[in-house]
Amino acid sequence: MMDAAHPEVSGERFVAVYRVVGDEARARDVADAICVEQTVEFPRRLLPPGGIERDVVGRLEAFESDGESAWRCSISFPIEDTGFELPQLLNVIWGNVSLLPRVRLLHIDLSPSLWARFPGPRFGRQGLRDHVAVHGRPLLCTALKPMGLDAQMLAGYAYEFAMGGIDLIKDDHGLSNQPFAPWYERVQRCAEAVAEANARTGRHTIYLANVTGPTDAVLERAHAARVMGAGGVLVSPGLVGFDAMRALAADAELNLPVMSHPAFIGSYVTEADSGIAFSVLFGEIMRLAGADAVIFPHYGGRLSLSAADCRETARGINQPMGPILEAFPVPSGGMVLEMVPEITAFYGSEVILLIGGGLFAYSSDVRKSSERFLASLENG
Amino acid sequence: MMDAAHPEVSGERFVAVYRVVGDEARARDVADAICVEQTVEFPRRLLPPGGIERDVVGRLEAFESDGESAWRCSISFPIEDTGFELPQLLNVIWGNVSLLPRVRLLHIDLSPSLWARFPGPRFGRQGLRDHVAVHGRPLLCTALKPMGLDAQMLAGYAYEFAMGGIDLIKDDHGLSNQPFAPWYERVQRCAEAVAEANARTGRHTIYLANVTGPTDAVLERAHAARVMGAGGVLVSPGLVGFDAMRALAADAELNLPVMSHPAFIGSYVTEADSGIAFSVLFGEIMRLAGADAVIFPHYGGRLSLSAADCRETARGINQPMGPILEAFPVPSGGMVLEMVPEITAFYGSEVILLIGGGLFAYSSDVRKSSERFLASLENG
Repeated sequence: MMDAAHPEVSGERFVAVYRVVGDEARARDVADAICVEQTVEFPRRLLPPGGIERDVVGRLEAFESDGESAWRCSISFPIEDTGFELPQLLNVIWGNVSLLPRVRLLHIDLSPSLWARFPGPRFGRQGLRDHVAVHGRPLLCTALKPMGLDAQMLAGYAYEFAMGGIDLIKDDHGLSNQPFAPWYERVQRCAEAVAEANARTGRHTIYLANVTGPTDAVLERAHAARVMGAGGVLVSPGLVGFDAMRALAADAELNLPVMSHPAFIGSYVTEADSGIAFSVLFGEIMRLAGADAVIFPHYGGRLSLSAADCRETARGINQPMGPILEAFPVPSGGMVLEMVPEITAFYGSEVILLIGGGLFAYSSDVRKSSERFLASLENG
Repeated sequence: MMDAAHPEVSGERFVAVYRVVGDEARARDVADAICVEQTVEFPRRLLPPGGIERDVVGRLEAFESDGESAWRCSISFPIEDTGFELPQLLNVIWGNVSLLPRVRLLHIDLSPSLWARFPGPRFGRQGLRDHVAVHGRPLLCTALKPMGLDAQMLAGYAYEFAMGGIDLIKDDHGLSNQPFAPWYERVQRCAEAVAEANARTGRHTIYLANVTGPTDAVLERAHAARVMGAGGVLVSPGLVGFDAMRALAADAELNLPVMSHPAFIGSYVTEADSGIAFSVLFGEIMRLAGADAVIFPHYGGRLSLSAADCRETARGINQPMGPILEAFPVPSGGMVLEMVPEITAFYGSEVILLIGGGLFAYSSDVRKSSERFLASLENG
């Protein structure tokens, strides 16, 4: 077998950085396995003479100690291995390696051709601020809940939240197309309610419809939501695939901000030595896949991240990433009004404050709770 | 706030079973969090008077010790919470809980209405056997590789494999739409090569095209593959979403067997106390989402599962699951010919033996390797 030449290979490569726990021999074995397993999945010694080793297989670019019994391996891959499609890019980075314990993906460093192909968030922080016409302070967000209310009741809350000054009113991520509040009716009513409130307040509050659903319904619902007046979409890429989110962000006709929810993907981050780093999953991958705002659990809330985990998450969301825009961090999960000063101190003002149940806990009059939420910033 | 009645709630519930590691107080807290967090995400004490607690929130049905400092919690949910859509069903089962460490999903027990909505594999084991006209012995499978070869060379191997007696010839899961062997050209050539071999051998070998790709391309490629003569599809649900696989299996016009690949989802299973059990991820969820054959790493191979993990995986793939058909286990990852007796002893004859690189290792004449592979069964 002779391998044909690869005139189509540009020589441009991108880099993924992994941390391997174990002794040096194990780490070098794993690094070599990553080079092979993520690309040719074929014994090196049997590769045909020719360019495959050079043009297709991953290459260990750096190997360094990273604390006791841990090693940092930087591996480069030819951009052509990705086929310039997001699922295959993610496959090269974390496909079969995902099956190896004590390996953690620490960083992805793309390259110009891939950035051109995967432009990331359509709006980014500044664009989302312009979209809701709020600058100079954190944005306020809440969620329509609880599941079980009918569409009219949820829309009633949407109206009150908007009257009270919330900037972004999203569906709870568990609201899909349940008989309690069927998708079309809910989105129609909630979008109308927010528009009506905006007409009174002069604000530009947006309603973000949850478009997480069957694979053929995601884009369809997003377009329907836009027609009905939704100002953004919420999606859980763990449930529909990262590429579905990318497609939402890339859709010029849709042209709506995208907020991501971490449902179903917590398992990638919860074990410190395995899986994907917080900064990569919630930062680099979410931005690569087009999220303008990224929901993740704040350490003071119901779900157990540490302050260090949240700091790392925020770093991934904020750090430079070629031409890809920064997203908004959206710390959440059991936030209450009393935590606003602490959250803004921790993340700074480039943050979306998401309080859901906590607004109901403050007062059953959620307009009043929302006004208090806004005042907590303006007075702060 | 008064909650409307829920005449749409049937009273039918399904069950998810979780293992929580920690002391009893932690386990009870987590169980309660699951009931709430996966449904209303709302403080119980603030739920409106009315039926939400009864008709929407999860309910702890059983709580038992499961070894030292571990607890088994069975929680039921109203079927209506799922909206009868797979992404939301998975969200109810493992959405926010995925963010909790030391909780593992052990089992899903659906109910008649959900089984009716999610019928699972279209072919199942018997159907796939009929499709390739092979009964009474394990099926033989190989993968077209390595990435970097052009479409003509890959098709040349497909022809040799088919001539040698392989039943299922799949794209390597990393072959997507790279410039080395662009998708349409590769699928066309490989399907033709297998058809040509079948015309000579009288066998019914199938070529399974990898349709993992951008969200809007998955079904489109599957239909194109069928038109070009592919006899099945390969998909990595971790990269495109489980619902995309369900849509492939549910497509009556497509009517092709579906083989699943575990790329990107290893992180759910690698840590024993967290994530999703092997039997659930590779068994229950893959079948629920329509896989006729499920690839997973065999313990003797390149990727590190234990024999117990593989036994548990096989159990999930084989166990009764209402009307949902059994799938084929496809143990893989560095298999070689010498392992055939061991693998068939371990899994029995209802197995697909997948040897990729190992056929090249046996001989550079892969027709000869394939003949040896087949003979290893017939003589066995």
